[in-house]
Amino acid sequence: MVDFTNPSPASTLLAAEPSPGFSVTLRVSVPNTATATGDLVATVTASQAVLTALDVVESLGDYLTVDVSCDALGAEHMRLVASRLESLPGVEVRNVSDRTFLSHLGGKISVSARAPIAHRDDLARIYTPGVARVCEAIYRHPDDVYNLTMKRNTVAVVTDGSAVLGLGNLGAEAALPVMEGKAVLFKRFADVDAWPVCLATQDVDEIVRTVEIIAPAYGGINLEDIAAPRCFEIEQRLRASLDIPVFHDDQHGTAIAVLAALWNALALVGKRLEDARIVVSGVGAAGTAVIHLLLAAGATDIVASDRDGVLYDGKAGLIGPCQEVALRTNSRRLTGRLADIMPGADVFIGVSVGDLLGEHDVAAMAPDSIVFALANPRPEVDLRVARRHAAVVASGRSDDINQINNVLVFPGFFRGLLDARCRRVTTSMELAAARALASMVTPERRSASYIIPNVFDPNVVPAIARTVTEAARAEAV
Amino acid sequence: MVDFTNPSPASTLLAAEPSPGFSVTLRVSVPNTATATGDLVATVTASQAVLTALDVVESLGDYLTVDVSCDALGAEHMRLVASRLESLPGVEVRNVSDRTFLSHLGGKISVSARAPIAHRDDLARIYTPGVARVCEAIYRHPDDVYNLTMKRNTVAVVTDGSAVLGLGNLGAEAALPVMEGKAVLFKRFADVDAWPVCLATQDVDEIVRTVEIIAPAYGGINLEDIAAPRCFEIEQRLRASLDIPVFHDDQHGTAIAVLAALWNALALVGKRLEDARIVVSGVGAAGTAVIHLLLAAGATDIVASDRDGVLYDGKAGLIGPCQEVALRTNSRRLTGRLADIMPGADVFIGVSVGDLLGEHDVAAMAPDSIVFALANPRPEVDLRVARRHAAVVASGRSDDINQINNVLVFPGFFRGLLDARCRRVTTSMELAAARALASMVTPERRSASYIIPNVFDPNVVPAIARTVTEAARAEAV
Repeated sequence: MVDFTNPSPASTLLAAEPSPGFSVTLRVSVPNTATATGDLVATVTASQAVLTALDVVESLGDYLTVDVSCDALGAEHMRLVASRLESLPGVEVRNVSDRTFLSHLGGKISVSARAPIAHRDDLARIYTPGVARVCEAIYRHPDDVYNLTMKRNTVAVVTDGSAVLGLGNLGAEAALPVMEGKAVLFKRFADVDAWPVCLATQDVDEIVRTVEIIAPAYGGINLEDIAAPRCFEIEQRLRASLDIPVFHDDQHGTAIAVLAALWNALALVGKRLEDARIVVSGVGAAGTAVIHLLLAAGATDIVASDRDGVLYDGKAGLIGPCQEVALRTNSRRLTGRLADIMPGADVFIGVSVGDLLGEHDVAAMAPDSIVFALANPRPEVDLRVARRHAAVVASGRSDDINQINNVLVFPGFFRGLLDARCRRVTTSMELAAARALASMVTPERRSASYIIPNVFDPNVVPAIARTVTEAARAEAV
Repeated sequence: MVDFTNPSPASTLLAAEPSPGFSVTLRVSVPNTATATGDLVATVTASQAVLTALDVVESLGDYLTVDVSCDALGAEHMRLVASRLESLPGVEVRNVSDRTFLSHLGGKISVSARAPIAHRDDLARIYTPGVARVCEAIYRHPDDVYNLTMKRNTVAVVTDGSAVLGLGNLGAEAALPVMEGKAVLFKRFADVDAWPVCLATQDVDEIVRTVEIIAPAYGGINLEDIAAPRCFEIEQRLRASLDIPVFHDDQHGTAIAVLAALWNALALVGKRLEDARIVVSGVGAAGTAVIHLLLAAGATDIVASDRDGVLYDGKAGLIGPCQEVALRTNSRRLTGRLADIMPGADVFIGVSVGDLLGEHDVAAMAPDSIVFALANPRPEVDLRVARRHAAVVASGRSDDINQINNVLVFPGFFRGLLDARCRRVTTSMELAAARALASMVTPERRSASYIIPNVFDPNVVPAIARTVTEAARAEAV
């Protein structure tokens, strides 16, 4: 998953391979010799960074100015590459531009007018005096707010900053870059106008009340990066009080993508969801929603495990959402730890933390096993190791095949909710969206390397949007 | 003023002359004769609408399809024009498009990504994994939120819908078209990203707390169309608790524009603000702020009047803001009603309701009097009548000379606040902004018809922004 579900220390946010998320451009001054640029390339490569571009910017007398762009493993690694280059004879690193930071400078979104204001007459229509009639029309016919304002296409991306990516409780300001990024994705993939709402409170009552109060301008609420179990209560209460759909993406976006990929993986190995023995590791926002959606889709044998071991009905210390999971799963009443329930499992779904499983755990699964190791950036099990034993392996990584990513779901899902002017989200819609997403991979194209479409597949959003709209109309919500 | 300050019934929202705010396009089918279009034009004109365009869309056999566009006096008048056209022989009105409503369809603003996402590498930088480092940077250095997010250029336009234009308490949804319009103006005139925040509450404590909670994403708060006296307490409390500037445009935008225009008008007639006898009609949000800013600018003789008559220190029934106004004005302790204090006044400033004054009231003012009749759409006194006696007359009307309009102020004012990363708004900034605005009209160009620049004057926003930034730096806020 792109959304890290459980907190992990920031220091683990090191890519296993050089990543464009750690892309750097170093401006270096080098002696103008025949081997100068060749030495730069060799040094970058020897430092295990991936060279992505080399531009000679200037040739001045005895010196060249060269921009060396490369992908690194992390911030520390960027500094290492720079110091290695500096150690070359006559080379000076004059500037280090972290391209990720450059792409965030000044923010990532802006507000645009949908029509230009060239003339005083335009002002008279979009502002006073003309706008007064539009206000009165909405006052008299409240439903017209969907026709005559931004509401019809606008979603609030709401966070309290308590579970920012895998970094934990960074607060509202530090969460803003993620919410802006989400708004960019909403726009890019589904032409939805999404707006960051970063709340300077982590009190459930205040969060709920604030969202209720700001709701009039929005056609939907996307909750984001709010820690469990708080996120469950907030969603539940908002769904009860608001007349616009509320969707916690870390829960339901994840669950829909997992179910779609799982249907295709099971079809590939000739098993049925109804019969599969499924192990879920992690019972946070994502794990809980995955379990409930799999049950709604017909799964009958799910066993969940968290840091305190396997969940079973009656286990001491379980609260709210975990208690409900325990009640609805593990009918064989297994106990112990994660490793104890892996033998014989058909499916492993990890939405927890990295490096929980070893090779023997995957080897002990049933034949033709399926492993979704979605912790990010470090999966629950080494993907190469998992592939030695499992028939299908998927992860949340963008640098591997079968990336199960929320961005496949939330843009199209909200597009559909807005198009149908839904007032609430139902499990039927979620199942329909998962079916639509799964069906983007046709049986002919389905393979162990292709159980879920690419995030840039242009057919995904319209297919999900259409199916959500249809489900909404069928249920008349 | 474009902002109607005091509530007035919606039925008064009739333009005195045909306005582009009531612009309509009628699609009519007419017999294809030599006089057909001429008859349409004559009928529109005879109906007292102003023809703005005539397009022959289709010529099919014996009939022409013609789009007739015209400006009307109001919605009722639009229907009259249509029925007059229908009464012509063989003419059928097939469609009536209210162009104001058309320009609001689907809302007036959208969210844009500041950089495109073409490739997976772009995702890795603006979303995960790259964004995680940006979040951590802000967590470690909170001030970086101004460099690395939208905050530096973003303003919340906050309303509770309690005083929407002159229409009164229409609520949050019906206020949305005005807030969107404001966002469009912010973008058009100052490249500020402004976002509507329409609150489903009119409780002062809830409004204050909600704005505090949503503040992290914003570099400034623009309060809008919140009824007096509630607006004063809300602004005061938010200014105390937030570390970003809070500006109630209906108060301070109005006051700054009035002061700028008044300086120029007084210079024209050779009087000084310090000596002028000033009458202010209306002690709502705008009136109160106008009075305080004029006092700060050096005015010494202000007398205010509201629907209960002239305000004086010790008058029974005055509360909070009105009490303060009474305390700081009317040193001659005048009593009575508005008409009683007009004789001998140098300046009349109306921010109240239409048709309060007659010709004799203006005639009774001092020689070379100045009349700012800013109630909208109907000024406190007929402007043509006022011009018979006053040396300088200004209004809030877009169809008259000397339009005193908030849009001259708030875009540049916030541009300056954001550029300087101000944490609060001061009276010095407001005075500086008024001086900058006044100085856009040079002594050589100043005349009774030109005391304030046009809203489309491209020099206004940079001048105000620069002066606000300088004032902020001088005060180190």
